Amino acid sequence: MAGSTYGDIFRITTWGESHGRGLGVVVDGCPAGITLDEHIIQHYMDRRKPGGIKYSTPRKEGDRIEIMSGVFEGRTTGTPISMMVINENQRSGDYSEIASYYRPGHADYTFDKKYGFRDYRGGGRSSGRETIGRVAGGAVALQLLKEIGIEVMAYTKQIGPVAVNVDRFSKSDILASDLYMPDGDASRKAAEYLDGMMRKQDSAGGIVECIVKGIPAGLGEPVFDKLDAGLAKAVMSIGAVKGVEIGAGFRVSAMSGSQNNDEYEMSDGDVVKRTNNSGGVTGGMSDGADIILRAAFKPTPSIAATQRTVNKNGENIEIHIKGRHDPVIVPRAVVVVEAMTGITVADMLLKNMTANLDNVRKVYCR
Amino acid sequence: MAGSTYGDIFRITTWGESHGRGLGVVVDGCPAGITLDEHIIQHYMDRRKPGGIKYSTPRKEGDRIEIMSGVFEGRTTGTPISMMVINENQRSGDYSEIASYYRPGHADYTFDKKYGFRDYRGGGRSSGRETIGRVAGGAVALQLLKEIGIEVMAYTKQIGPVAVNVDRFSKSDILASDLYMPDGDASRKAAEYLDGMMRKQDSAGGIVECIVKGIPAGLGEPVFDKLDAGLAKAVMSIGAVKGVEIGAGFRVSAMSGSQNNDEYEMSDGDVVKRTNNSGGVTGGMSDGADIILRAAFKPTPSIAATQRTVNKNGENIEIHIKGRHDPVIVPRAVVVVEAMTGITVADMLLKNMTANLDNVRKVYCR
Amino acid sequence: MAGSTYGDIFRITTWGESHGRGLGVVVDGCPAGITLDEHIIQHYMDRRKPGGIKYSTPRKEGDRIEIMSGVFEGRTTGTPISMMVINENQRSGDYSEIASYYRPGHADYTFDKKYGFRDYRGGGRSSGRETIGRVAGGAVALQLLKEIGIEVMAYTKQIGPVAVNVDRFSKSDILASDLYMPDGDASRKAAEYLDGMMRKQDSAGGIVECIVKGIPAGLGEPVFDKLDAGLAKAVMSIGAVKGVEIGAGFRVSAMSGSQNNDEYEMSDGDVVKRTNNSGGVTGGMSDGADIILRAAFKPTPSIAATQRTVNKNGENIEIHIKGRHDPVIVPRAVVVVEAMTGITVADMLLKNMTANLDNVRKVYCR
Amino acid sequence: MAGSTYGDIFRITTWGESHGRGLGVVVDGCPAGITLDEHIIQHYMDRRKPGGIKYSTPRKEGDRIEIMSGVFEGRTTGTPISMMVINENQRSGDYSEIASYYRPGHADYTFDKKYGFRDYRGGGRSSGRETIGRVAGGAVALQLLKEIGIEVMAYTKQIGPVAVNVDRFSKSDILASDLYMPDGDASRKAAEYLDGMMRKQDSAGGIVECIVKGIPAGLGEPVFDKLDAGLAKAVMSIGAVKGVEIGAGFRVSAMSGSQNNDEYEMSDGDVVKRTNNSGGVTGGMSDGADIILRAAFKPTPSIAATQRTVNKNGENIEIHIKGRHDPVIVPRAVVVVEAMTGITVADMLLKNMTANLDNVRKVYCR
Repeated sequence: MAGSTYGDIFRITTWGESHGRGLGVVVDGCPAGITLDEHIIQHYMDRRKPGGIKYSTPRKEGDRIEIMSGVFEGRTTGTPISMMVINENQRSGDYSEIASYYRPGHADYTFDKKYGFRDYRGGGRSSGRETIGRVAGGAVALQLLKEIGIEVMAYTKQIGPVAVNVDRFSKSDILASDLYMPDGDASRKAAEYLDGMMRKQDSAGGIVECIVKGIPAGLGEPVFDKLDAGLAKAVMSIGAVKGVEIGAGFRVSAMSGSQNNDEYEMSDGDVVKRTNNSGGVTGGMSDGADIILRAAFKPTPSIAATQRTVNKNGENIEIHIKGRHDPVIVPRAVVVVEAMTGITVADMLLKNMTANLDNVRKVYCR
Repeated sequence: MAGSTYGDIFRITTWGESHGRGLGVVVDGCPAGITLDEHIIQHYMDRRKPGGIKYSTPRKEGDRIEIMSGVFEGRTTGTPISMMVINENQRSGDYSEIASYYRPGHADYTFDKKYGFRDYRGGGRSSGRETIGRVAGGAVALQLLKEIGIEVMAYTKQIGPVAVNVDRFSKSDILASDLYMPDGDASRKAAEYLDGMMRKQDSAGGIVECIVKGIPAGLGEPVFDKLDAGLAKAVMSIGAVKGVEIGAGFRVSAMSGSQNNDEYEMSDGDVVKRTNNSGGVTGGMSDGADIILRAAFKPTPSIAATQRTVNKNGENIEIHIKGRHDPVIVPRAVVVVEAMTGITVADMLLKNMTANLDNVRKVYCR
Repeated sequence: MAGSTYGDIFRITTWGESHGRGLGVVVDGCPAGITLDEHIIQHYMDRRKPGGIKYSTPRKEGDRIEIMSGVFEGRTTGTPISMMVINENQRSGDYSEIASYYRPGHADYTFDKKYGFRDYRGGGRSSGRETIGRVAGGAVALQLLKEIGIEVMAYTKQIGPVAVNVDRFSKSDILASDLYMPDGDASRKAAEYLDGMMRKQDSAGGIVECIVKGIPAGLGEPVFDKLDAGLAKAVMSIGAVKGVEIGAGFRVSAMSGSQNNDEYEMSDGDVVKRTNNSGGVTGGMSDGADIILRAAFKPTPSIAATQRTVNKNGENIEIHIKGRHDPVIVPRAVVVVEAMTGITVADMLLKNMTANLDNVRKVYCR
Repeated sequence: MAGSTYGDIFRITTWGESHGRGLGVVVDGCPAGITLDEHIIQHYMDRRKPGGIKYSTPRKEGDRIEIMSGVFEGRTTGTPISMMVINENQRSGDYSEIASYYRPGHADYTFDKKYGFRDYRGGGRSSGRETIGRVAGGAVALQLLKEIGIEVMAYTKQIGPVAVNVDRFSKSDILASDLYMPDGDASRKAAEYLDGMMRKQDSAGGIVECIVKGIPAGLGEPVFDKLDAGLAKAVMSIGAVKGVEIGAGFRVSAMSGSQNNDEYEMSDGDVVKRTNNSGGVTGGMSDGADIILRAAFKPTPSIAATQRTVNKNGENIEIHIKGRHDPVIVPRAVVVVEAMTGITVADMLLKNMTANLDNVRKVYCR
């Protein structure tokens, strides 16, 4: 129950530490027959890679993904897909200082309390590099979803107090921005805000929004494994996320029922909703509208400014965390949100196949 | 994978429909030796029972819980604890109208899309009565937590725009209020707000906050099964919840790292935090501070005001939902949040027992 | 992890003790749309019921099954199917003696070591009545399999040294025999053997064989969740089973490869096997031939003859177990083997639906 | 649900194909603090390695295990332990023939039926090399068990008709024999039998017995997750196993209750059993005696002798499988049985920790 596995049918198991030999993922339960190769995965990996822009760490690793199993002649075989990235940069350097105290906002203290000791090199298992396995696994899920016509698209909605202020944009608008903010004006202001934070040796948080288009109605299970409950866990499990909301989210608390209810109407012979306050999930199941979720990310905990904490000897001390750190992790987290959403939806898609006898007959009876 | 089971070690499986023969829960994995009887469970059941106050449905069911197995001579035996409530009030009445269309904000449409048909009597499995099993199971979890000194306490933080404005209060302050709002002033204003909504044939939403005291550090698993990720799923799986946040929650997005980081200090020989923006969870594991989470509930979807929707024949129609419905479900949901939090923490507590060899030796070696 | 749940997609959770208020099962993950009512379930329940023949206990309970949820208008709804039997006969009598010592061959000692104490009334959770939930859940699985043309049929292959000696027989031949032995000659000899055992205050064991007809090729997962591995667990989990084999079973150890390999040939355009030493499972997956498995049951441990054991005070004592007990449990276990096989195959059938992209497309794309 | 994961708390996930880039395993849920390095793992790997003796394939791979994560300063950290073996020998050679037909006794046909196509190189995922991950994961489990004083020891009980005929032997007696048969006489006769089979271009099966010493009473869960049910699945999931039995096994079917029951007696203040027909498991839980299980292995399906089968065009053909194949797999499977037993017992050991409140208090309360 150490929780390094996520998903029930479409299932990923991740492993690896920041400064160990490498990091990776095993994807089990991916249907056979899906087109896959290393270029497809690498495309997603590059979006989480550090070093691309000035607001992320300079450690320039290639983070080249290798597919070790489960793909034959360009297609998934139905057996486990093992993928990994070898750490090129694992010279352990001098970690004696970091080993001796608990950094505020980091998992140093909680790791020690749980396990009795920790791999302190670069954060070990609680490093942001842990997301390598999530993104590689997510890339496979997103390939599967594409086969059924489902598209997942995340972007930076907000950095610090600066929010995106446009409604219509495409995936390429997102990718065109260094900060993955599809709004030139907001993107510039956010960059200025980050520059200010860097000058103050401080850091910033933000909000990522994720949209799922083309999802059939009925995905998600009605009680504990609701689609939104699964998404909430998936996204909250990303380090630094402190809040998750679907559709109108926290705003529903002050709305009236007549404002919040999404009315149904017929459109070209289909049942559709006039509004989408539900964010595409009603009663825990997809209702045919786009899924819309948002995640709040806390500011990077590693800051150069002076902080108070305690050391292993139980003494109060002052620290200055060395090295250069991302002043904001939100842009690099966008693809991680996309990945975790993709895995969750793929898993729900496969689970839903056994919901009724008609589906069972479609597969087994001619 | 129909998702009627929640938890890995401490695990509940719920069953039942609003107007079937009854509803219940099987709790598996509860350690042997915990004091338990029907009065303890009933105490929690009564907090979710309808009919107690004017803002909830008049259906006056006893909702008397029966323990069918797993308890012997006043203590849990380690075998499954089956509990149930017989529906006293299951005269099916006339559901032909409700069967013929899709109510906005309800799961009618999504159930039909998933399963091909639905038990339409009173919402069937998507009724609020589904929480009976959650609360009974949660009561067992809360008994287990009490043995280790962990206390869970939820309350109504906000109804519509009216929020609680006091910081210090006890469980009895919460229980003293019809709306479970431990702030006399806010409680009165919320009641007035609800009266207004009822006059307008409309409904209200709100926010529940839940606090866990006395939790040891180190609970929660560092990657996918983070304590906060588990809580997010648990609470988002409650019908009508559209957002979940921990500690500073969505506010972190606009905070700086130096504002948000909780610094450590020594206090009476223990490591403690000076602030609790993390809401008691750092790196996915409990950090020794109180856990604080909030859930946003949407307004009751059943409203008497005219609504547009479609019927089974694919025609656009107007409806007026009959019967009396709660103008707000938040007060009755308070104990449900407490229950789901209790189950999640109990499960994490048991999972954490196997985290290190010292714990294994404490159990098996003398 | 208390293990009262079995199955991954088609999943049962059982509860109840021999002399508690009742026993039952929750079936989750059964597809919607399957014809079901209490008569169908009761038909299976009656085959495990005591009191039918002279070789079983005289306790004449009706063991009437009640469906509490998950069925609407004669069909499964896709939501959990809760079923239970109320214990009519739970006057606890005098258990002070049985509470004070450990019966050889029973779980008294192991229960105490695990949990610290036990519900000693009539064996509590380790009573043969625990199979009530298995049989009721199995009946649902067998209904699902019937929809796809899969039939499961178990029978008494051997009692003590007396084995069935015919190859061709039908389900009605099995049901015609009190001992569920479809061989008149063997049935008579087995009855005589049992009479002898009863005179000696002793008991007998035996073997149950189970055959699955009409199973499509490809069910079962190739590594840990092999079809035969799943069946082995399912059947070994039935109290009193000490061995499980598939096809040629233990005989393979002395066969040569050329004897044991099943050759393929074309028959009416289909690939079939010339022999079935594999028992219908090759490489962990169904190969299209009948599945054939056998389970060895130990003799009833409750015997009237004098036995030595120890009591709770740590003293060596001699005991004579009172009351009338089945001299053999095999005939009543036949339907339990059928049930556990049915659940396993149903679960594998549903799991296999997501094995390849073609199946996913059959469900989601037109 | 593709079933490449085994275990609930102590959990392994394996990946890899015979002629892909490599094979490996991720162990999740291993407690922190256990001494581990590559030499310990390699010691087990070498026992399953081909090429050591004349009765196994000449492919002389080093099969060198690498630990990629989860171990720091010589101890497990509590995070996932990823281990792998790179395939040195993956030149794909000419597989066009093997790709075109279904080998009797192999999973070629069933793989195609399940997934629509298969990685046909060297058996792909159904190759014996799949056990690499099992053995590496098992080695970790066996290290954990050693910490609690539990030892697992498997050996070749029988090859073809030749059985071991001694009762007392040590692990070094087993390892001294090329065939892992701790009986010089039987070992010689088995070697002669195998020579005969090789001359006839045929193959042999056999039986492996596994003994677990030092196991505390109470491990295993009383209903579906019985210790023996778990062992049955674990061992039956090894390719080529067709039967599993515990203790007296299939012999119980012809024994009487008075013969089979294990009586209890006091010995030095402890409760012990006078006999061990139960094979150390009573009511699904360990009873304090040695666990004894046996697995029947079928003869190697790859034989050089002429066999009939069908090809992909649906034609009946005759084949002669080329290359040199092990005439018996039993000796190399001994360590695999040990590994799967170790994983199962380790998982049950960790699960049992939460069985009662006393254990919970031992960990959390001082």
